[in-house]
Amino acid sequence: MINIGLYGYGNIARGIEEAVKHNDDFNIVAVFSRRDPSTVKTSSGVKVYHSSEVANFVGKIDIMVLCGGSATDLPVQGPQMLKLFNTIDTFDTHAKIPEYFQTMDKVGKENGHIGAISVGWDPGLFSINRCLFEACMPEGENYTFWGKGVSQGHSDAIRRIEGVLDARQYTIPKEDAVNKVKAGLNPTLTARDKHLRECFVVLKEGADKDYVEQTIKSMPNYFADYDTIVHFISMNEMRKNHMGLAHGGTVIRGGNLSSENKAVMSFEMNTESNPQFTSSVVIAYARAIYRMHNEGRVGAVSVLDVPVSYLSKKDSKTLLKELL
Amino acid sequence: MINIGLYGYGNIARGIEEAVKHNDDFNIVAVFSRRDPSTVKTSSGVKVYHSSEVANFVGKIDIMVLCGGSATDLPVQGPQMLKLFNTIDTFDTHAKIPEYFQTMDKVGKENGHIGAISVGWDPGLFSINRCLFEACMPEGENYTFWGKGVSQGHSDAIRRIEGVLDARQYTIPKEDAVNKVKAGLNPTLTARDKHLRECFVVLKEGADKDYVEQTIKSMPNYFADYDTIVHFISMNEMRKNHMGLAHGGTVIRGGNLSSENKAVMSFEMNTESNPQFTSSVVIAYARAIYRMHNEGRVGAVSVLDVPVSYLSKKDSKTLLKELL
Repeated sequence: MINIGLYGYGNIARGIEEAVKHNDDFNIVAVFSRRDPSTVKTSSGVKVYHSSEVANFVGKIDIMVLCGGSATDLPVQGPQMLKLFNTIDTFDTHAKIPEYFQTMDKVGKENGHIGAISVGWDPGLFSINRCLFEACMPEGENYTFWGKGVSQGHSDAIRRIEGVLDARQYTIPKEDAVNKVKAGLNPTLTARDKHLRECFVVLKEGADKDYVEQTIKSMPNYFADYDTIVHFISMNEMRKNHMGLAHGGTVIRGGNLSSENKAVMSFEMNTESNPQFTSSVVIAYARAIYRMHNEGRVGAVSVLDVPVSYLSKKDSKTLLKELL
Repeated sequence: MINIGLYGYGNIARGIEEAVKHNDDFNIVAVFSRRDPSTVKTSSGVKVYHSSEVANFVGKIDIMVLCGGSATDLPVQGPQMLKLFNTIDTFDTHAKIPEYFQTMDKVGKENGHIGAISVGWDPGLFSINRCLFEACMPEGENYTFWGKGVSQGHSDAIRRIEGVLDARQYTIPKEDAVNKVKAGLNPTLTARDKHLRECFVVLKEGADKDYVEQTIKSMPNYFADYDTIVHFISMNEMRKNHMGLAHGGTVIRGGNLSSENKAVMSFEMNTESNPQFTSSVVIAYARAIYRMHNEGRVGAVSVLDVPVSYLSKKDSKTLLKELL
């Protein structure tokens, strides 16, 4: 049995509770929250403790699953928790990964713990495939498409506009671009060529519709470089049609094997629940780092450092027979 | 520089010569052949030696790439070469992989060498994805589709029929089945549901067309359980239209994350040259096992045992920055 704790209780933690149902070598020992534990009810019935009590669980938890957000939680909680436990997290601020890895690597090595960072699908399974594709066909180009799915960051950006009550932004890959890449044409694609941004916005009473639409469409980085569609809807319609957590995406590489022959590889994922999928991946990697730590590995690791055999419950003989 | 030798000189060896052009950390030291070396001309100009001279190259070759066939060459050459060198091969007789792994593991450990077995795309990249998919979503089902591409085994089976001068058999995945699986329906599929077998046959003068067609279509294991189409063509048409080495395939897993939410993952590969693609994968894994051996690893390994970061020429920092 691999004993895990959940540090933070949101969508990822709830996803872990689901994932553990399909992975009977895991046991959730405790949930830790900054909130008053009496106000947090877990769906699995696991007991909730205040985060200040976490040090009492040293020796009782093999791996602490860090379920906080990347923006402000993980940069602080990651190193704190790695001092006490082996950890796994879903840190996904791509630009800050090298720095976070370095910090976690140092703390892990100083304290004899292993910390798996940035586990999930992107970063995560997509990263594995980007690396695998590039190494197996060096002359070529990687493309990543995301969606169709809600971008939390873009939805938040719209919600900050004056007059907006609620918003969802769907990132949608442009089929024409995907098809060109899949055909091995290695096209040069701008941001606009690759993805469409479709926004559903609920206005506050008396808000200026044109102002909101123009502010969205001209927002630098987020929308200005894209074809952006804005729909104004009622709160009822938002609740009815836009509460889903589906997401997905594709990594594709086209390249040349020789002057005569090309190849194309692609990895595609579609899920009805982004957090449940992420959590399901996290549990597999928790198993892997549990094993790696038992073999003496300490410091930070990413999905790129983990052989896939370590993810599986099956032993080496069974894997060779059934999956190789 | 990683110094490699090529043991056997056929399509895979020629593919390695191409792959090394895109991987400048490799140097081909020598080619070994059972034929008279003066009759073998390598496309890269690398010198050919008789296979009986191979022991003279101990200490000069880091990894011997075994380019022989799985049926009769590798079961003998694998253990022989692994006594002298680190090795990598493309052993692809799925049913015999566990036994071959065990033999190679023993020889490798006894002689302090590492032997990577069954590298390529299936077994190989497909195996990685089957394992990754299953571990990341335990409740679900894996499907593998092959093609469109020539099956050497099925083509050979047709060539053994009386009256047949030459033949090519294309394995073609059935679109309807692929679409159902990609939609996450996890259908129950028979062999017939999954693949179509299309055969192009050149008859000998005076051969019995109906006999050949019936013999093909009723051949147990190979064709009887499939929808099989037989075309009779001229030798000219065979030479003009059916000499290509294109191949490809897809691994798909659909499954349940919870009682409410599903997910589907897929990996797809299409290549204009099956042997060149295989060789390109082999070179990446040769780099990986060179590193693993430098770290002290001995015995047999499969692609499931190799972290993808070991495949890349890029250092860990660059990988985190560019690919994670």
